[in-house]
Amino acid sequence: MSVNIKIVGTGLIGTSIGLALARKGITAQLADQSASNLKLAIDYGAGAAASEAVDVVVVCVPPDLTATVVIQELAANPNAIVTDVASVKSAIRHEVDTSAEDPSRYIGSHPMAGREAGGPKGARADLFFARPWVITPGSESSQEQITQLRQLALEMDALPIVLSPQEHDASVALVSHLPQLISSALAGRLLAAEAADLSLTGQGLRDTTRIAASDPAMWLQILQQNANHIAPLLAELKADIDALTDAFQDINGAGSLSQIHRLLTAGNDGVAKVPGKHGGKYLEYKTVTALIDDSPGALASLLTFIGEKGINLEDIQLEHSPGAPIGLVELQVLPQLEADLISQLTENGWRLA
Amino acid sequence: MSVNIKIVGTGLIGTSIGLALARKGITAQLADQSASNLKLAIDYGAGAAASEAVDVVVVCVPPDLTATVVIQELAANPNAIVTDVASVKSAIRHEVDTSAEDPSRYIGSHPMAGREAGGPKGARADLFFARPWVITPGSESSQEQITQLRQLALEMDALPIVLSPQEHDASVALVSHLPQLISSALAGRLLAAEAADLSLTGQGLRDTTRIAASDPAMWLQILQQNANHIAPLLAELKADIDALTDAFQDINGAGSLSQIHRLLTAGNDGVAKVPGKHGGKYLEYKTVTALIDDSPGALASLLTFIGEKGINLEDIQLEHSPGAPIGLVELQVLPQLEADLISQLTENGWRLA
Repeated sequence: MSVNIKIVGTGLIGTSIGLALARKGITAQLADQSASNLKLAIDYGAGAAASEAVDVVVVCVPPDLTATVVIQELAANPNAIVTDVASVKSAIRHEVDTSAEDPSRYIGSHPMAGREAGGPKGARADLFFARPWVITPGSESSQEQITQLRQLALEMDALPIVLSPQEHDASVALVSHLPQLISSALAGRLLAAEAADLSLTGQGLRDTTRIAASDPAMWLQILQQNANHIAPLLAELKADIDALTDAFQDINGAGSLSQIHRLLTAGNDGVAKVPGKHGGKYLEYKTVTALIDDSPGALASLLTFIGEKGINLEDIQLEHSPGAPIGLVELQVLPQLEADLISQLTENGWRLA
Repeated sequence: MSVNIKIVGTGLIGTSIGLALARKGITAQLADQSASNLKLAIDYGAGAAASEAVDVVVVCVPPDLTATVVIQELAANPNAIVTDVASVKSAIRHEVDTSAEDPSRYIGSHPMAGREAGGPKGARADLFFARPWVITPGSESSQEQITQLRQLALEMDALPIVLSPQEHDASVALVSHLPQLISSALAGRLLAAEAADLSLTGQGLRDTTRIAASDPAMWLQILQQNANHIAPLLAELKADIDALTDAFQDINGAGSLSQIHRLLTAGNDGVAKVPGKHGGKYLEYKTVTALIDDSPGALASLLTFIGEKGINLEDIQLEHSPGAPIGLVELQVLPQLEADLISQLTENGWRLA
């Protein structure tokens, strides 16, 4: 990509974009209201301080400042495309269309990636790897502008998806905003819990409440901007919870068990539609599962062998029963290395699961 | 433990108990209605076919058969303690107290462990490692009986916790049954989703809906048996969802944003009470985090070194940014090995995070 890129806001997302570009040999120009955040991002290697004219501006500031900063950057960079990374697109599109002098140079983006650890310190060059990067053109956006943003997403190893702002907002209401609200509501119920209750906590509770730890101030901005899409989904869920509550109040009443069974079955069918870590349509690491003996040296010799073959592992998971005679090792590699890893292992006497 | 143990029902839990005992040199006697399940469990090394008099019977059959089989086993083994592993305790206690000839020999158990993969094939010797194993004595249970069950739980490397059947059922209603219902309800809402919506799926949706894949038939039995504890919790959650729905229907109305903010903040506070993987009060693997270069051989030499020192790793996680100059390796070991691992690594030039 032979364009000059400016990143405004060097938090988690902005710094991660800078790191991802740096990896491809592109030095982004960085700007941030906070001098210390900016210095930290530059120290991490995410880019240099902003100094010259740019072709693309990526606004990575909190949701309720995004439209204002986009409008400022459009005015300050009269030849640049301006995009942003906010989680709701229609409201910003509307504000820019209403108030900017040349709104045709704004195209929204939403990289679907994040971490619980915020700020430049949490940034990672591979934050966007294999993640959807939604591009939301307006009615005046040109094909060339869309192509340029696709290019940017691909530089991040992300998967570009083009949707209208409305389509995007309707989708995230269902797959992101509703789960956030439900997780928060469920976790809120734990306020009344006693220590004895929580000593029985299992993985189910941990998983269902994990995202309840998200930042309320940021989420309030997101949820407010997308209220019109969230409201009908929440009303439907409320109807389900109402029916369920009635069924449990009168568990032996006619239809109560079938009501509950229907909900559990619908849950089965619904979760089956969720693309899994290794499913779905987008790029992921590939997993090769090998069997090893349960001895201290077994895993090391497997990894020594793989290292000697020059194959870099992206991740490893051990499925290991202490005392069991064998262990399973899930080896994750870039998709293009999968076939090589499999043939190297099988041709050299390693067992695959 | 110098007692004869019989396991009735060689599904996931029963077979795992047999494997855990086998690891300690104890051969359990196994029984199952299904000859193929029984043979599979014996093949896996979970025990031998039942043949002689026993001291402890562990009933590991589906929830709605549990009381009946407990009563049968009490009659068939007139000198044995009989326990079970069902997820709800009061209803079974009541049925046994009402119908068994000698209910004083029954003490309930609930090992808080499971996997999505059911049946003997999913069994693991370490399924109960560091997990709560709740023991629910009745009013006639003796201290000696409780001690014997504690001993059994400790043989599984589980953490025994003694609660009354009612205390147990109230706790699991909150930390297990309510999350199950909410996860199912949320996942059920995805039935109406289109492919475009689900292409934006992130980890939040995956986590909140994972347990919605649970078996509806088994859960219906569990939920029915614990309806009296679930009903009031569900009613409270329903009130939260009602208020939230009203707020989103009129997002600019007085108090709407503060209502939503209150719920998000309560969620933060609630999830903070959940014991984490490395928090909480019960036994877990210890994690030592080492830094390595991002080169194909770096991880292998770390693991070769650890293997040469005779330290067995239970699990490994890589935090690895492709192209970044360093990677983080989380090494998990049994608690008693942590200090040795740390000193071996630091004394030999490895960097710890």
